[in-house]
Amino acid sequence: MAAFGRVYNFSAGPAVLPIEVLQEAQADLLNYGGSGTSVMEMSHRSKAFEGIIKAAEADLRTLLSIPDNYKVLFLQGGASTQFATLVHNLTAVGDVADYVVTGAWSKKAYEEGLKLGVKANLAAKGDNKSIPAVDGWKLSPDAKFVHYCDNETIGGVEFQEAPEVGDRVLVADMSSNFLSKPVDVSKYGIIYAGAQKNVGPAGVVIAIVRDDLLGNTR
Amino acid sequence: MAAFGRVYNFSAGPAVLPIEVLQEAQADLLNYGGSGTSVMEMSHRSKAFEGIIKAAEADLRTLLSIPDNYKVLFLQGGASTQFATLVHNLTAVGDVADYVVTGAWSKKAYEEGLKLGVKANLAAKGDNKSIPAVDGWKLSPDAKFVHYCDNETIGGVEFQEAPEVGDRVLVADMSSNFLSKPVDVSKYGIIYAGAQKNVGPAGVVIAIVRDDLLGNTR
Repeated sequence: MAAFGRVYNFSAGPAVLPIEVLQEAQADLLNYGGSGTSVMEMSHRSKAFEGIIKAAEADLRTLLSIPDNYKVLFLQGGASTQFATLVHNLTAVGDVADYVVTGAWSKKAYEEGLKLGVKANLAAKGDNKSIPAVDGWKLSPDAKFVHYCDNETIGGVEFQEAPEVGDRVLVADMSSNFLSKPVDVSKYGIIYAGAQKNVGPAGVVIAIVRDDLLGNTR
Repeated sequence: MAAFGRVYNFSAGPAVLPIEVLQEAQADLLNYGGSGTSVMEMSHRSKAFEGIIKAAEADLRTLLSIPDNYKVLFLQGGASTQFATLVHNLTAVGDVADYVVTGAWSKKAYEEGLKLGVKANLAAKGDNKSIPAVDGWKLSPDAKFVHYCDNETIGGVEFQEAPEVGDRVLVADMSSNFLSKPVDVSKYGIIYAGAQKNVGPAGVVIAIVRDDLLGNTR
């Protein structure tokens, strides 16, 4: 796209967006869909914005074949905020939670768990280059969830499929490989991903949460 | 601005942005300042973005005459997230905090304090129409902070100046009147405001924090 003077950014940060997407955003910036306002000015309760958020959810449900018993949440705070959010929503103080650490991001999630009063069990720790064999993970029988990071950006450690954790609640940080491959959502309790790497601009995190895990917040 | 089919929104939600601001954002959307990328695609560590955030902070410091011993933070999560953030950063469990409730927003802040293990003291409660006389507020001698909302949108209850709380740390939610008038920042420990009402699009909250209050997080 030399005509636009476009530069391609292959670093681990925010991703390049398709030129057609940027052009549509640009065209709508002053007057979204004939509403007379920019999307930046409209109420989150307006019909125009309701249309945007519903279409975004429907598209995501189609792309990932998300089952009906999962809610799709568009949240603020970035993926790192989820390290605390999931602990607050899935555990009481003193509960056990399993963490698998395969790199910097899953380590941060584990450290957040330690801060928030759960018994954070380091079920497995990798060498930042490969995934420790899943059948060697020391999972707790009473863990409220098992957290791992599906793709660690720094070491490039990526899971090829959902690890087998029995009937435990599997929680995955998919920030850096979200929508890059088909995922069997039904194997997960929660999938979350910061939008800025693969699906949109910074500031939004997407959480896909199984119905039965909702409503138990501390 | 009939030529653009613009509609003016006077509701309590996101504010109308000046057409010149929207036009500049639109023009830069594909290629910010000749960088070859959209602002939505660039790394937060890039020189281009560093220029944006530094200019935003410098402009804000000029507009509000912010003293040098205050930090300016651009945060995610919206102003409501600050209800918890300030408790985590200013108190230990069991500490006392004073809350003045003059409407729905300051009530939510008070309720969040109750949840997070502080002794939340309801120092004053208004009738959602007027401000209870400040000299009647039952402030605690050992309060870690005094929280109030400078303008309650639903009842339209707005303070005309910073309430006198002695040498206590005054914390103000200014989401709905931020930058609408000069403020003596030096009277406050923390001023915070969701950006979407008065200064920008949704998703950003601005916190102005006095230096000595930093670094004591739980």
